[in-house]
Amino acid sequence: MDARSEKQERWDRRMETPLMVSSLLYLAGYAVRVLAPHLAQVWLDLCLAVTLSAWAVFVVDYAVRFRLSGLGPLRFVRSHFLGTVVVLLPLLRPLEMVKIYERVQRRRDQPRLTLYARVMAYSSLTVALLGFAGALAVYQRERGAPGATIRTFGDSVWWAAETLTTVGYGDVTPVTPVGRTIAVGLMACGIALLGAVTGSFSSWLIQTFTREDEKRPPGDFPGA
Amino acid sequence: MDARSEKQERWDRRMETPLMVSSLLYLAGYAVRVLAPHLAQVWLDLCLAVTLSAWAVFVVDYAVRFRLSGLGPLRFVRSHFLGTVVVLLPLLRPLEMVKIYERVQRRRDQPRLTLYARVMAYSSLTVALLGFAGALAVYQRERGAPGATIRTFGDSVWWAAETLTTVGYGDVTPVTPVGRTIAVGLMACGIALLGAVTGSFSSWLIQTFTREDEKRPPGDFPGA
Amino acid sequence: MDARSEKQERWDRRMETPLMVSSLLYLAGYAVRVLAPHLAQVWLDLCLAVTLSAWAVFVVDYAVRFRLSGLGPLRFVRSHFLGTVVVLLPLLRPLEMVKIYERVQRRRDQPRLTLYARVMAYSSLTVALLGFAGALAVYQRERGAPGATIRTFGDSVWWAAETLTTVGYGDVTPVTPVGRTIAVGLMACGIALLGAVTGSFSSWLIQTFTREDEKRPPGDFPGA
Amino acid sequence: MDARSEKQERWDRRMETPLMVSSLLYLAGYAVRVLAPHLAQVWLDLCLAVTLSAWAVFVVDYAVRFRLSGLGPLRFVRSHFLGTVVVLLPLLRPLEMVKIYERVQRRRDQPRLTLYARVMAYSSLTVALLGFAGALAVYQRERGAPGATIRTFGDSVWWAAETLTTVGYGDVTPVTPVGRTIAVGLMACGIALLGAVTGSFSSWLIQTFTREDEKRPPGDFPGA
Repeated sequence: MDARSEKQERWDRRMETPLMVSSLLYLAGYAVRVLAPHLAQVWLDLCLAVTLSAWAVFVVDYAVRFRLSGLGPLRFVRSHFLGTVVVLLPLLRPLEMVKIYERVQRRRDQPRLTLYARVMAYSSLTVALLGFAGALAVYQRERGAPGATIRTFGDSVWWAAETLTTVGYGDVTPVTPVGRTIAVGLMACGIALLGAVTGSFSSWLIQTFTREDEKRPPGDFPGA
Repeated sequence: MDARSEKQERWDRRMETPLMVSSLLYLAGYAVRVLAPHLAQVWLDLCLAVTLSAWAVFVVDYAVRFRLSGLGPLRFVRSHFLGTVVVLLPLLRPLEMVKIYERVQRRRDQPRLTLYARVMAYSSLTVALLGFAGALAVYQRERGAPGATIRTFGDSVWWAAETLTTVGYGDVTPVTPVGRTIAVGLMACGIALLGAVTGSFSSWLIQTFTREDEKRPPGDFPGA
Repeated sequence: MDARSEKQERWDRRMETPLMVSSLLYLAGYAVRVLAPHLAQVWLDLCLAVTLSAWAVFVVDYAVRFRLSGLGPLRFVRSHFLGTVVVLLPLLRPLEMVKIYERVQRRRDQPRLTLYARVMAYSSLTVALLGFAGALAVYQRERGAPGATIRTFGDSVWWAAETLTTVGYGDVTPVTPVGRTIAVGLMACGIALLGAVTGSFSSWLIQTFTREDEKRPPGDFPGA
Repeated sequence: MDARSEKQERWDRRMETPLMVSSLLYLAGYAVRVLAPHLAQVWLDLCLAVTLSAWAVFVVDYAVRFRLSGLGPLRFVRSHFLGTVVVLLPLLRPLEMVKIYERVQRRRDQPRLTLYARVMAYSSLTVALLGFAGALAVYQRERGAPGATIRTFGDSVWWAAETLTTVGYGDVTPVTPVGRTIAVGLMACGIALLGAVTGSFSSWLIQTFTREDEKRPPGDFPGA
């Protein structure tokens, strides 16, 4: 068991940089194909190759992890749920990137950010990356659809922003079934984002509260 | 009193599976009638029969519980408020199903999910089931209404999703009084959902916070 | 000082029922005038008289409290901020009614609701009353306005519900300056409502969390 | 090091009033130029001069702080991130004003507001000022744009209110790229506002909760 977890640890460390680079390449390749469809064919083919290679890296990494874990397929899928989703839908990769960044940070023994700041930074980064990926995917589906209100990539980014913050003006909205399915995913992220912001603010406040309370003579009730 | 609570306990255990199956049958029967109105009459009648039988099970269960409790009608209604609502509006049944599932889990002594994960799982499941039931009910009311924007069941699901997340684009909205009443119920659920997500995130964070704090030398203030 | 606070106490107790009745009469009188403008003139006059009498009760109560407090006008306004607002805008009266109800409850020594349930009940009641008052006020302003989308009282209630839950479809929205000002007030209440729901859920969860933690052997981290 | 921090302290104190006045002048000058573009040229020039002078005060203050800190440019920017943003985008100045107000309050040894009330007051003030600045900036960009729905300053304020509360009716929305970028900033503030309100409510509730719990015999579980 110890030898196994040591091997897993070594694999984790070795794959950090490749996985991060692959994630960025995947997103970049996908973005170019969506945003510049009138590029010369050779460039589009190159982008497709980059995207598929990046995906291949994810699949290989997943397979190796499966082998190293020594678990049955079902139990592995259950205990690596996020990883499984991300292999099937690589546009959700940003969710993993954040984890890798954290792991790198931890090992370098840098003065770590405090928990509150970390939660804010991670949720902001995750939201920005997911919003960008979501805007790309929705734009790809919607731009040709009849009756679409999302016509430019700018519209799509604007739509992603109002969805993630749960503002939802409704001036531009997806009309295709696939676009709406992606939208539901983004809405769920928006609620999680709200939860993260509110939760970290609330816990920070409670901490400060408790400290002020301890310094004060009792009886002077805060908020009363 | 002890004999009574023992009887109640036995009834609870005996009714678990029947109630769960009835709940699913009720929802399935209702869904078929709403979504496939052009089915042969015999099938529609069958669905109606299934729906009504399921409802009968709920009513009988409610009546037995009333008898077993030994309370007066008013006090029973007050102490079983959710149960009473659910007998009258069986589409809200999913709220109860979650409770049954929990009870089953508890007795089997499985390694229980941690509280945080449980809250997330229950609120997700409840929201999904209520959203589905709400989308069905609104679709049934709206599809024939003049000036309706909810014309397909897909529209209705899309509308339920943007309502529960409080995004509210407003591209499709109910226009009939009954549809709007159901919508207000879904909005309330959406706020409760936000509260559940935020609350569990916040409490998880506070726990982690406190632990990190204990490990660190004092003076290094988190979030500062 | 003691004699003064005793007098205040006595005044509080004596005014409870009159204030509650006046609040309900004010709202009822206002509602009839807004919702049934084609009633015989004598009835409308009666409603106006009821509304104004109720307002007079509020003003007298405010004046007596000012005298009893023995404070200067400015300090009194500062320490009774909510009361001052409510005297000027009696439609916000529901906010006070909740307080009176609580005071009555407390004295009767009934088994008090637990804090969590109390917060939920009060915020629900306050929100329902404010939503009704807001819907009335907006309907009165909007129904005659050119280009208005709020044309019936049903529209106005529907609009109040989507505003208080921050869903905001935008299918019906106020277009007059006064209507929009009232709307901004309702939005602020909506955010406060969200805060109340989330906050009470979160604190309830933290309590449960802490208890489960204490019962369990340490090391088995919840949410991990 | 001590001499340096003493100098910084002195600078802080000396700049309080000038910075507050400059902030208000900047906002006032900007507001007049946006809202009264048909004023006589001499007044517009005066406003421009006031705006630019206020900006100059911000820049000088920033430069002096940089010198006094004795840090390298990069480290200074990192540790004064908010200050740097505010020098480049002076419309965000309100965020700083709140800080100055707090500092003034603290030194005068007034009976400080309790933490909960302070958080509510600061977030309300910040939100009001940011909403006003955002409404001004969006109005300036949108009023001439083809197809704009924000045509008057009233529309712009109304739009800012529905954005900050995340209601988002969508009856008026920005259509220009710059207007939408400002809107995304306001949405982020809206989420932070929600977090602040919810967080402070939640922490206040938890405090009250804990106190009630201590007074009660154990076993009587709140919220059960």
